[in-house]
Amino acid sequence: MRKSFRELLDAGWNAAKFVCVGLDPDVTKLPAEITGDPVDRIVEFNRMIIEATADIALAYKPQSAYYEALGVTGPLALRATIDIIRKIAPDVPVILDAKRADIGASNEAYVRTVFDFFDADAVTVHPYFGPEAMAPFLDRADRGVIVLCRTSNPGAGHYQDLDVGGKRLFEHIAQDVVDNWNYNGNCGLVIGATAPTELGDIRRIATELPFLIPGVGAQGGDVDATMKAGLDSRGHGLIISSSRGIIYAYKDRPDLSIEEATRSAAQDLATEIESCR
Amino acid sequence: MRKSFRELLDAGWNAAKFVCVGLDPDVTKLPAEITGDPVDRIVEFNRMIIEATADIALAYKPQSAYYEALGVTGPLALRATIDIIRKIAPDVPVILDAKRADIGASNEAYVRTVFDFFDADAVTVHPYFGPEAMAPFLDRADRGVIVLCRTSNPGAGHYQDLDVGGKRLFEHIAQDVVDNWNYNGNCGLVIGATAPTELGDIRRIATELPFLIPGVGAQGGDVDATMKAGLDSRGHGLIISSSRGIIYAYKDRPDLSIEEATRSAAQDLATEIESCR
Repeated sequence: MRKSFRELLDAGWNAAKFVCVGLDPDVTKLPAEITGDPVDRIVEFNRMIIEATADIALAYKPQSAYYEALGVTGPLALRATIDIIRKIAPDVPVILDAKRADIGASNEAYVRTVFDFFDADAVTVHPYFGPEAMAPFLDRADRGVIVLCRTSNPGAGHYQDLDVGGKRLFEHIAQDVVDNWNYNGNCGLVIGATAPTELGDIRRIATELPFLIPGVGAQGGDVDATMKAGLDSRGHGLIISSSRGIIYAYKDRPDLSIEEATRSAAQDLATEIESCR
Repeated sequence: MRKSFRELLDAGWNAAKFVCVGLDPDVTKLPAEITGDPVDRIVEFNRMIIEATADIALAYKPQSAYYEALGVTGPLALRATIDIIRKIAPDVPVILDAKRADIGASNEAYVRTVFDFFDADAVTVHPYFGPEAMAPFLDRADRGVIVLCRTSNPGAGHYQDLDVGGKRLFEHIAQDVVDNWNYNGNCGLVIGATAPTELGDIRRIATELPFLIPGVGAQGGDVDATMKAGLDSRGHGLIISSSRGIIYAYKDRPDLSIEEATRSAAQDLATEIESCR
């Protein structure tokens, strides 16, 4: 029986792994030497990335939008990618970055899709409907539910920083995830590396939750500030995600093969993280 | 050239149409007499619903979750459904109820999927990232962007009713959609029929926006209260959505064919709406 998302994360952190590899394959940016139809090219590209990073990655994070953009073959490409992760890196959890959230029977359908059909270990979700509506996700105790809290976009604060009774909305939601969402111990929060001060504020609220941290690399987030602000009391708790910085690293390293350039970029991030612990 | 989402809505309202037919086909609930593999059964069922309601519907609203739950054939079933709407009811806009929202290049990929590959006239979105992140959607001036405001689930108020500087969060967002999202005149709001008082409050803020109103029928929303609270100054502005109440009406009417039962349920809702105007 497969370990829970949280158990898989704990095993990774115990092995000093913190790097989440974002599998965001834009079909217009793939290496020319990978040929075939779009779905074959994307799956082959992902296979190369996964093989190059299997012993470094704490988690893989396919961004659903890029697979959906393939049209009819989207679900095939995503499922094939997750199948490859299971074969090459069976102990590395898959976070499907789909940012889903609906109500009632629609959520039940999303849960079947994400956790059963795609077999993702975790999914990202929007908070707006509140925890009552999200029960179909939360009730899957072995799977992770990672709630958007303070995001990495430039305008993230537009609503997220609103004052709600002396706290900012993102702080209120962080506290509420601890109090009302996490009854199965399977929740996490999304917090951009672009906001290290807010990250520290959230860690003081959600002392035990895993944080998925996008925004290092291309978006400008700082690894040292992230580690200092975000680690939990055991020196764990962070899933530091890089997508373009790893999967397109080969473009800046014509001296290396794609696999070597990918591995080198992932290892560089892992080394930088290790030096900040 | 196809009319914009707003022009299609205006034409429907001018013809006194208010009913949005939710195409939420659960493959386990389809009539036994429709045979074949799941995708064929769903597309054929949708074709029957669309033919039965083509001259009554203001809009069609496929709920993405049900198509995604088909797995590999999901995009095929959704695209085939939208193709059928274009053939049978070309002037009836399609609202893809996908509740998407992400940032940067991921949103650009979603926009291509929703508006180009599926060719939906409008999409529902989550507000949490704020308007800056949602520009790829908002910039498609001919397409509708319908923002979750006050939803129909029992726990909707958990965050949506939070006090933010003397206003509730959903009111703040409604005002902000008017002020900061609607620069192309293509925005709308989702407001549950289960909250008619809040609906009236939002109409006073967003006097000109179209409101997508789920929650009549199975969820218990009241048509008369919705019409009284939600109509705009021209007596338009509402997209009143019913899914299960229309598409599964045949189960309660064994005396009628599926098409007759579907049409009867849609016509009953249209008649009830007309009597409340």
